[in-house]
Amino acid sequence: MELLGGPLFAVAGAGESHGPGVVTIVFGCPPGLWLERQRIQAWLDRRRPGGTRHGTPRRESDRVTFLAGLYQDDHDRLTAGPTLALDGDDPQAAATYDAGYTTGEPIAAVVLSTAGRAGAYEQFRGPTGAVRPGHTDLVKHYQSGGFVDIRGGGRSSYRSTISDVIGGGIARLYLERAFGTVFLSSVVGVGPLRAERTLAAAVAELGPRIADEQVSALSAALDGTWDEVGIPTIDAAFAAAAADLIKQTRVAGDSLGAVVEVVGLNVPALAGDPLYHSLKLRLMGSLGGLHAAQACEIGDGAAVAGRRGSENNDPIRGTGYARNSHGGLIGGITTGNPLVARVAFKPTSSIARPQQSVRKDLAEIDFELRKGRHDPCVGVRAGVTLESRMAIEVMNAVLMHAARHVDPADFDLFPTEE
Amino acid sequence: MELLGGPLFAVAGAGESHGPGVVTIVFGCPPGLWLERQRIQAWLDRRRPGGTRHGTPRRESDRVTFLAGLYQDDHDRLTAGPTLALDGDDPQAAATYDAGYTTGEPIAAVVLSTAGRAGAYEQFRGPTGAVRPGHTDLVKHYQSGGFVDIRGGGRSSYRSTISDVIGGGIARLYLERAFGTVFLSSVVGVGPLRAERTLAAAVAELGPRIADEQVSALSAALDGTWDEVGIPTIDAAFAAAAADLIKQTRVAGDSLGAVVEVVGLNVPALAGDPLYHSLKLRLMGSLGGLHAAQACEIGDGAAVAGRRGSENNDPIRGTGYARNSHGGLIGGITTGNPLVARVAFKPTSSIARPQQSVRKDLAEIDFELRKGRHDPCVGVRAGVTLESRMAIEVMNAVLMHAARHVDPADFDLFPTEE
Amino acid sequence: MELLGGPLFAVAGAGESHGPGVVTIVFGCPPGLWLERQRIQAWLDRRRPGGTRHGTPRRESDRVTFLAGLYQDDHDRLTAGPTLALDGDDPQAAATYDAGYTTGEPIAAVVLSTAGRAGAYEQFRGPTGAVRPGHTDLVKHYQSGGFVDIRGGGRSSYRSTISDVIGGGIARLYLERAFGTVFLSSVVGVGPLRAERTLAAAVAELGPRIADEQVSALSAALDGTWDEVGIPTIDAAFAAAAADLIKQTRVAGDSLGAVVEVVGLNVPALAGDPLYHSLKLRLMGSLGGLHAAQACEIGDGAAVAGRRGSENNDPIRGTGYARNSHGGLIGGITTGNPLVARVAFKPTSSIARPQQSVRKDLAEIDFELRKGRHDPCVGVRAGVTLESRMAIEVMNAVLMHAARHVDPADFDLFPTEE
Amino acid sequence: MELLGGPLFAVAGAGESHGPGVVTIVFGCPPGLWLERQRIQAWLDRRRPGGTRHGTPRRESDRVTFLAGLYQDDHDRLTAGPTLALDGDDPQAAATYDAGYTTGEPIAAVVLSTAGRAGAYEQFRGPTGAVRPGHTDLVKHYQSGGFVDIRGGGRSSYRSTISDVIGGGIARLYLERAFGTVFLSSVVGVGPLRAERTLAAAVAELGPRIADEQVSALSAALDGTWDEVGIPTIDAAFAAAAADLIKQTRVAGDSLGAVVEVVGLNVPALAGDPLYHSLKLRLMGSLGGLHAAQACEIGDGAAVAGRRGSENNDPIRGTGYARNSHGGLIGGITTGNPLVARVAFKPTSSIARPQQSVRKDLAEIDFELRKGRHDPCVGVRAGVTLESRMAIEVMNAVLMHAARHVDPADFDLFPTEE
Repeated sequence: MELLGGPLFAVAGAGESHGPGVVTIVFGCPPGLWLERQRIQAWLDRRRPGGTRHGTPRRESDRVTFLAGLYQDDHDRLTAGPTLALDGDDPQAAATYDAGYTTGEPIAAVVLSTAGRAGAYEQFRGPTGAVRPGHTDLVKHYQSGGFVDIRGGGRSSYRSTISDVIGGGIARLYLERAFGTVFLSSVVGVGPLRAERTLAAAVAELGPRIADEQVSALSAALDGTWDEVGIPTIDAAFAAAAADLIKQTRVAGDSLGAVVEVVGLNVPALAGDPLYHSLKLRLMGSLGGLHAAQACEIGDGAAVAGRRGSENNDPIRGTGYARNSHGGLIGGITTGNPLVARVAFKPTSSIARPQQSVRKDLAEIDFELRKGRHDPCVGVRAGVTLESRMAIEVMNAVLMHAARHVDPADFDLFPTEE
Repeated sequence: MELLGGPLFAVAGAGESHGPGVVTIVFGCPPGLWLERQRIQAWLDRRRPGGTRHGTPRRESDRVTFLAGLYQDDHDRLTAGPTLALDGDDPQAAATYDAGYTTGEPIAAVVLSTAGRAGAYEQFRGPTGAVRPGHTDLVKHYQSGGFVDIRGGGRSSYRSTISDVIGGGIARLYLERAFGTVFLSSVVGVGPLRAERTLAAAVAELGPRIADEQVSALSAALDGTWDEVGIPTIDAAFAAAAADLIKQTRVAGDSLGAVVEVVGLNVPALAGDPLYHSLKLRLMGSLGGLHAAQACEIGDGAAVAGRRGSENNDPIRGTGYARNSHGGLIGGITTGNPLVARVAFKPTSSIARPQQSVRKDLAEIDFELRKGRHDPCVGVRAGVTLESRMAIEVMNAVLMHAARHVDPADFDLFPTEE
Repeated sequence: MELLGGPLFAVAGAGESHGPGVVTIVFGCPPGLWLERQRIQAWLDRRRPGGTRHGTPRRESDRVTFLAGLYQDDHDRLTAGPTLALDGDDPQAAATYDAGYTTGEPIAAVVLSTAGRAGAYEQFRGPTGAVRPGHTDLVKHYQSGGFVDIRGGGRSSYRSTISDVIGGGIARLYLERAFGTVFLSSVVGVGPLRAERTLAAAVAELGPRIADEQVSALSAALDGTWDEVGIPTIDAAFAAAAADLIKQTRVAGDSLGAVVEVVGLNVPALAGDPLYHSLKLRLMGSLGGLHAAQACEIGDGAAVAGRRGSENNDPIRGTGYARNSHGGLIGGITTGNPLVARVAFKPTSSIARPQQSVRKDLAEIDFELRKGRHDPCVGVRAGVTLESRMAIEVMNAVLMHAARHVDPADFDLFPTEE
Repeated sequence: MELLGGPLFAVAGAGESHGPGVVTIVFGCPPGLWLERQRIQAWLDRRRPGGTRHGTPRRESDRVTFLAGLYQDDHDRLTAGPTLALDGDDPQAAATYDAGYTTGEPIAAVVLSTAGRAGAYEQFRGPTGAVRPGHTDLVKHYQSGGFVDIRGGGRSSYRSTISDVIGGGIARLYLERAFGTVFLSSVVGVGPLRAERTLAAAVAELGPRIADEQVSALSAALDGTWDEVGIPTIDAAFAAAAADLIKQTRVAGDSLGAVVEVVGLNVPALAGDPLYHSLKLRLMGSLGGLHAAQACEIGDGAAVAGRRGSENNDPIRGTGYARNSHGGLIGGITTGNPLVARVAFKPTSSIARPQQSVRKDLAEIDFELRKGRHDPCVGVRAGVTLESRMAIEVMNAVLMHAARHVDPADFDLFPTEE
């Protein structure tokens, strides 16, 4: 089933690249969290193509509407969201939710699509349609017996990550309120270029508990390079070089891979089941399983393989771990240190340059993409999705740990005379 | 998580009685099923209050729109559903799906709500709001720490069964195409009245495989009493008496319980896992777990407790089971005989007559419902939901059985020279 | 998957009627529960055939051994259970656990089988083996493609409920310690006979909170009829009549159905998710899904269908619900009132009298059971399994409710200076 | 819940490092697979410490016994496994299974432990016990409220992977029979040393379909370095250097990280759900989530981030993909090319050299390990577990794809006259 996270906090999604909309249901948020649509919208705006000059020129406004799972007694404020209307003989209109408290019931959100005509996809239609190298076209055609939405990658499109960001946004609001947890990400590689300065290193200098103003400073740095050159990273020199490289590569009709670092700050300790559903296992899967990802590492990652134990074991002092090569997880359980992960993305599969490929009937062709423009470097906007997926898994792990603590006082209804 | 069925075919739902809409995601329908919106709409129309003169006078048109999971190359036909539009500074409009093939991806549907003002629920607002006996008001208030949607029962409203009917509808289309399976239901009890003639008995006379014209005849009989007196049952005399009793009871400000029989015809044999996830266990839960249900039985049900084994064991002949006291399930596995279940519903909790109750702060009150009119007998329209839930569980069991048969030919992509 | 309960507290089982043993893994018990093997053994002894003179004469000692998930620093006491040894060239022996604290890790238990030769099952062997009416023989043969353990019903045997009782036993210990919760059951019907006095009625007289001595008195009554005539019920007169009827029926080579009532006392309020995973849905499935069960009801059950709302709604007072026709659940959430359910069982399928049946190749035969003796009335020992399944579901629901309450203090590791 | 894989094919495990045994239940193997205990034992022997001279000197014979889920009509052959016996007043003995067909029911296995006294762990006992850097001691102590099995890492020990290997072994037998699928692994890094020759490269030279004799040749090469120097790798020169380094490091009281490559050959195409449960996501989690793993990559892994799309997209020809930089997965779906993954392991946490640490009460100490000897390089024997986990996920994905194909012929029981 199309679920991220779970079994307690989970996100279900549906919706294709060029379909009418993306539909999301978020399960398991405890009651009583104050949720404002604009907070979630702000994260969605970061995910959106066109939010960066390096993204695809296709414009999507990705306006989120909430239809279920919120409440407050002030109904006017509750339903101050945009109105959703249905035409026809029996027209209907419903004012959607703008802000309210979560009730513990499933929260539903709809993001309508404004993608235009599907004419650009004529090239891929039917049993003799072309197959794009690096895409799911061929395997999904055969897997589905030909019943696949061919428009823009269908369900396999990056557009599906709208659900990740909505679900992750709710988790972020919850964890922020309960623990002051914040999730940030920084691009650390674009093609052959690597950042000198990493977010993990910057955070390590600040100690285990990061203050609000420190978070603001980090965010400002990330927003700065995003606004200036369209690449959120704390290494401004790298950002400039990477932006140039992306521009040249786009002109050359080619694309670039990327590496993105994602960090959780002020993460509560002791969350995460060990072994088969450890938070490490879950994060490796959720982050490394994202579209176009081909590698994932936690903490110091692949580098630890080259070390000796005496170098790698993080010493422990009475106030905490003296280092964070473990990346915030030991035995799949949070230590309270920053959660650190890095994900390597392959270059965008859609490129303008001609390639060897086949039609769906396996006849060989020289393939050239007829229409459509695409992100030359998907990693540039993957950060908010990685943050969202990390938040979803941490949220679920937090609730799992809460379930270990049964307080009889939470089960009282009528007074008991004793 | 709010999931019916699963792990292969499952339905997720969200949405409250008086919220903006009910959102549904259906997982696991195999690719290639032709799905027309109007088929699902027809089942939703049977679920709808106001579809019967005995239902609540509140009018809801329950128009379903599909936003994800369907496809066909004819985009005009695909997107011939109603247009869903969002107002505001950045208005959007999306043509929803009218008909297409399933793709194997999650299918999403939205039903907007046209429920009017929530003023009728003023009486229940806040920590000193009144508690309706028989309702979830008190337990949900305390369970959620007060963060509960109090309008019309919130998520616990019967309106949530829209998701059941949508998911069940897709399962029905699939099973109908693959096996000719049909699900029907008949009201067999209203308050103290009991039908003389049951659907299970009528079906038993027809043999294990029911022909299309026999299905049509049964459906016509059920539609007949529905159209005439608002009670779908194959016992017309009972229908008339029950309709009178419901009318009297409504005038008296009271309500009535009911018993509904649900039957699956031409159900494939050999579906259903044994033991902990047996189809019997699943059906008992899914049917008996419906709102207001307090008892569920399979086949001859509670009556079998009074029998001897020599009376109860259904003899087996070379052409099939000679009787169906087992109700289509032995050891939790389908036998190919009609699936038969019966569910007993309590009288509608909302009644006009005064009752002893409390406020949410547990202060005692004489409770009288100020506004709102309600079904005096919820059982009358429970049938389509029971059929839907039965279809969901059968569908999942069918896919589980298919998973036992790995055919290497289904895993071929490129030709292998051998 | 063979799991009862879940997603937080769940029980996995494996093992066939005549296989080497039944293996059980119990997931999700919070750390810190003191668990003694003898407590679980006592419940298993109640499940065991031969524990009653009305059960099958087959003797099984059902000794439970614990192999995982417990700990205490006193290793001698921890490992004071029986020694499990493996013969062969490389013999091994392991002292199993006798008592310890749960650690939060999965708990594993093994019950070896002492069932003798499988010669009695020669009649059923191979593709021309006989099919027993009322049993799973035919459907499981075809479902598995002939790869089914034919000895004594294989996995579909009642012996599989050993896992239910072990998992339920752990849940009972936890709930007893945390809330004083106790689960009891009483046989209320055997064939056409019905008890005059029910456990639910007896409990209702005692008020919502049942004191230890009241529990002891109820238990003593149930043990009394069990010891005297092999039927645990609080209606001694009924017990005597039922015992006579069972005896006569056994002599006649026939069998009888039964009805068993199961009650949870001092159940915490506010547990249970609403709707698709409501505790009502879960209990209906788990209890009504047990072997040979054909009907399940909660609270006043099927009787409520015959009532008016004004009769059926339980009035609420400041100290609690004034009645318990709801059976401890409203909207699928516990009210703190006793949980009440009743399950109707069909007569034992295995009878000595000749019956019409088929061979597995569907050739018709006059079937007569050659060997083996069986419970003439399985309901008589179903009580402990129903109690166990109720405990498993309540336990899971309690943990789910605990997960709604995130206490930051539970996530502290190192001191934070503030 | 402690489950690997699922929802169709899944493995549950229980058991601690120094507990009486490791218990495994394997769910969802279709009926009809011929399973011999010795096949599974052979894989367990590869997992076993002491199976290599570089492993821990602790000797464990890890003899597997099967107690449930197998059958064949020849009972003597079925039950020719070792006898499991229980001592005490009521001694019991059960002959376990040696070979049989799977029945579709859960398969249970027990591996008894012969680990000696727990005296070596005195140093870690109680609230003032020492904490080992790099281990789970501290987080599990606080997470469990002190109720943790401190002996040898308890449940977090590598010993828990016995369940992975048993479950993976059953998946391997199934996939081998159905598709000729084989899983192999090769150590490619030990500390700073890297192999020149990788298994992925060797396999790429052989074409998409690997013949039996080619598999044998690869296996022989891997067995050769294993037998000679205890490091299974196809690069013999690297093996020799790595063995020397491990030896020196052990003498120095230190440990080393490692990188292991795991490859699936003759993997069926078209398996794997896209998106949230894609096979890529599942493999990243399952492989990268293993004990001590800190990075995981698929196909060309992290290297792809440095490429351009025109370099990285694998051209497609009529006979298959012309390269395998995608590692056998596109869009999370198998392409029929070899599945390729690499996992980086941190150096073994247990080292003899003194380290800075704390007691469980957070008092600072200079920590020195008193007793116990450990693998200086855990990666050396991780291969068989990685192969097992890959097999489990592929098996589940294969069954999920089979569930997309409902063949009405599989649902026939009685003949239908038509």
